[in-house]
Amino acid sequence: MVSGVPHLTTALKGPLLTLEQHLLDNQAKVESWLREQWLITPAPFYASVDLRNAGFKLAPVDTNLFPAGFNNLNKAFLPLSVHAAQDAVERACPTAKRVLIIAEQHTRNLFYLESLEALRDIFEKSGIEARIATLRDDIEQPLEVELPSGKTCVLSPLTRDGDRVGIDEFSPCLVLLNNDLSAGRPAILENLEQQVIPPLEAGWSTRKKSEHFSQYHSVAKEFSEQIDIDPWLVEPLSLQCGEVNFKERTGLECLSKNVESMLSTIQAKYDQYGIDKEPFVVVKADSGTYGMGIMTVKNADDVLTLNRKQRNKMSSAKEGMLVENVLIQEGVYTFETWGDDDAVAEPVIYMMDRFVIGGFYRVHTGRGVDENLNAPGMHFEPLQFAQSCVTPDKTDTPDAEPNRFYAYGVIARLALLAAARELAAF
Amino acid sequence: MVSGVPHLTTALKGPLLTLEQHLLDNQAKVESWLREQWLITPAPFYASVDLRNAGFKLAPVDTNLFPAGFNNLNKAFLPLSVHAAQDAVERACPTAKRVLIIAEQHTRNLFYLESLEALRDIFEKSGIEARIATLRDDIEQPLEVELPSGKTCVLSPLTRDGDRVGIDEFSPCLVLLNNDLSAGRPAILENLEQQVIPPLEAGWSTRKKSEHFSQYHSVAKEFSEQIDIDPWLVEPLSLQCGEVNFKERTGLECLSKNVESMLSTIQAKYDQYGIDKEPFVVVKADSGTYGMGIMTVKNADDVLTLNRKQRNKMSSAKEGMLVENVLIQEGVYTFETWGDDDAVAEPVIYMMDRFVIGGFYRVHTGRGVDENLNAPGMHFEPLQFAQSCVTPDKTDTPDAEPNRFYAYGVIARLALLAAARELAAF
Repeated sequence: MVSGVPHLTTALKGPLLTLEQHLLDNQAKVESWLREQWLITPAPFYASVDLRNAGFKLAPVDTNLFPAGFNNLNKAFLPLSVHAAQDAVERACPTAKRVLIIAEQHTRNLFYLESLEALRDIFEKSGIEARIATLRDDIEQPLEVELPSGKTCVLSPLTRDGDRVGIDEFSPCLVLLNNDLSAGRPAILENLEQQVIPPLEAGWSTRKKSEHFSQYHSVAKEFSEQIDIDPWLVEPLSLQCGEVNFKERTGLECLSKNVESMLSTIQAKYDQYGIDKEPFVVVKADSGTYGMGIMTVKNADDVLTLNRKQRNKMSSAKEGMLVENVLIQEGVYTFETWGDDDAVAEPVIYMMDRFVIGGFYRVHTGRGVDENLNAPGMHFEPLQFAQSCVTPDKTDTPDAEPNRFYAYGVIARLALLAAARELAAF
Repeated sequence: MVSGVPHLTTALKGPLLTLEQHLLDNQAKVESWLREQWLITPAPFYASVDLRNAGFKLAPVDTNLFPAGFNNLNKAFLPLSVHAAQDAVERACPTAKRVLIIAEQHTRNLFYLESLEALRDIFEKSGIEARIATLRDDIEQPLEVELPSGKTCVLSPLTRDGDRVGIDEFSPCLVLLNNDLSAGRPAILENLEQQVIPPLEAGWSTRKKSEHFSQYHSVAKEFSEQIDIDPWLVEPLSLQCGEVNFKERTGLECLSKNVESMLSTIQAKYDQYGIDKEPFVVVKADSGTYGMGIMTVKNADDVLTLNRKQRNKMSSAKEGMLVENVLIQEGVYTFETWGDDDAVAEPVIYMMDRFVIGGFYRVHTGRGVDENLNAPGMHFEPLQFAQSCVTPDKTDTPDAEPNRFYAYGVIARLALLAAARELAAF
C-alpha cells in the first residue's frame, strides 16, 4: 500500500475546475436531484466505478456490479460501510439476519480473498452474520485460506436444499452475488425462494456495457441540465457495434467506420475546448470484464490491420466468452499522476446502496495515460483515499482534496444511477 | 477538549461484562430486531442520550430530542453524520433542498452556538442548504457571532408569511427544531404548511419524562427477551408522582413513600447481584431539562425535611415552569473515571435517524459518582470518542473500546426507540 495523494497535471484542468466549482456551487441541487432519482429507481446493493480524470473531463469508464477491492478502502471510514450495509440490507430484506456471499471463481487470488473477507467483516460489524460460498466444483469441504493480512478466509461449497441455498447449517436470508457470472447463470442459483442480489440478470451472461452507457447517456444529460454544463464533461461517448468477429474478420469495416466517426466527434470537442491532445477510442467486448478483449485505437485503419495475435486477444474474453458485440468508447486521458515517476493513477469509487463508502487510486508505473489500467496480469498499487468522498468544503479551492473526492463521488453516483436503471429494465 | 479514554472502575463490572458479551454474541439478533422496530416506528430525526455506566449496569438517564453538543463529536466521523443526515432528510422530506434550524433561546452560550454551527455544517456537507433562526424578540437583524473555533454563527430572526416560515429570501422545505420549547409552543410555528421536526408536541410543554421511561420500560423488556437478560441491567427503575408542590409542601408524603419503595426495590436488586453500594434515587421534574429541579435522595425521609432553599430549587425548572409532576428514577452510579484525579465521566451518545453518529464523555472533576452531571452552571470537559460506536470487534475483549462503544450505541438506540414510540403516540 503506497501513500500520498496523486498530483493532477495542471496544464489542462480549466474545464474540470469549472465542473468541480459547479458541483460545489450546486451541491444542494445535485444531492436533492440524486435523492429524487433513488426514490424512482433504487440503487443497486453495491458497485464500484472506475473513473478517468483527464483534467478537462471527469468520466466513468467501467461500472462493476460485483465489486472486489474492499480491502483497499481506508479503514478509518469503515463505519460508513457499516451504516451503508445496514441500510442496504434493510432495503433488500429488513428481517435479514444472515447473508451468504457468492464468491468469484478465481479464488486463488489472495487479494480477491482479502476483499471478500473485508466485505464479510462489514456485514459482521453491521450485525449480519455473513459467510462465503464458492461455486467451484473442486472445493468439496470448507477451505481455510491464510491471507497476507493475517486473517483467514473460509470458502465453503454451496449446497442447495429445495428452493434454498446455503452452507451446511447456515441458511441465509439474502444471497449476495460477488461473482459476475461470466461463465453463465449457475443452475444452483436459479428460482430460489431467497432473494438474490444483484439479480442473476446483472451478470455478464446477460449484461451489456453498451446498455449501461446508453443509460449513462440519459443520466448525464438529465444531470447536466440540472447544473447547466455540457454533458460531455462527465460522459465518455459510446457506440455499440454488433456482429463483430475478430477471428473471422467480419464486421471490421463497420467497426472501423464507427471508430472514425467517434474520433472526429472527439476531435471536434477537443477543438471546442482548445485541447491539444490526440483523440483515441477504446474498443472492448460489450460483455465481460478484467480487461480482456480491450484495445486502444487512435486511427480507424488500425482495426482493419490487426495481426493474428491481436485478433485472438480481442476474440477471448473472461472464461472464454466469444466477443460478438463490441463497445466503442471515447478514450479519456488520465492526467492524475503519483510519485516522482509520474505513475498513472486512476480513481475507483465504492458505493453501497446510494452511499459512497470510499475509494482508492490504482497506481500503475508501467502504463501510459491512454491505456486501460485494469488489464490482465497488470499490477497496481492501491492508494487509499485519505479522506471520505462526502465532506466537501466550500471554503477551500475546488480542487482541494475533499472537493476532488466529492466530485468523484458525484460522478460515480451518476454511473450508479445508470446501473440502477439498467437493473430496473430487466 | 481533553484526550484519553476513561477508565472503568473494575471492582463491580461482572454483570456488565456479561451484558457486553451478550450484546456481542447476539449482535445479529440485536441489529435485526432494531431494524424491524424502525420499520414499525420510524426513529426521531435526531437525539442524544445520556448514559450511566455503573459497571454492573448500563442505562439511559435522559433522552434529548433537541440535542446540542454536535461540536463535541470526533470530526473523523463527520462522514457518518453526513450520510445519516441525508438519510434522515430523505425520510422526512425527500425533495428537501433547504432546512431551517430553530435555535434555543440561550443563544449567548458560545458552546451552544458552536453546536448549531456544527449541525449546520453537517447539512451543508450533505448538500442541504441550512440556516439558523432564532425566536428571540430582541434580535431583529441577522446577528453574526464570532465563535471560539474561528467560525461565525449567523442567527436570523424568524419571519412568517402566510403558512410558511423562513428568513428573508430563504424559504425552507423543512423546519428543524433545536429548541425544547420549555417556554411553550410558539404561535409562529403553529399550523405551518412546512414540516416541523421533531413535532411541536415533542417540546417540554407537552413531553413528560415519565412517558419516555414508561415506553423505555416496554422497550427494555422486549429487548431483554430477545437476548435473554434481566431488563434491570439496561433500565433505570422509574415512577411518576403527580400533584407534588414543593413550595406548598403538598404531595411530599406520597413522594416519600414512593422513594422508599423504590429504594427497597433497588436494594433487593443489589442483594441479588451482590452489589455492596448504597441505593439512591433521583427526583426530577417530569418536564424540562438543564438539571433544574433535580435532587439525589438516599433516604425517603429527606424529601420531608427539605429546607426552603432546596424546595425553591425543586420548584423552578427552566424558563420558570412550575414543577407539578415529578419523576422518581433509580440512581445509576457512574463508575467511569478519567485522569489521575478520577474525574467522573458520563457518556453521551448522538443519533441521527436510526444511526449512531458518535459520542463523547462529559468529564467532570467536581462531582460525585451519584450526582447529576448536567446541572446548571456546571462545567464539563468533553472527551470525544476516539472510535465510532458501529465497529464492534468480536476478536477483542468485551470491554475493549470498540465493544464498549458498541454497547453504548445499542443502549442509546433502545432509548431512541422509546422516544420514537413516544412521538408516535402524540
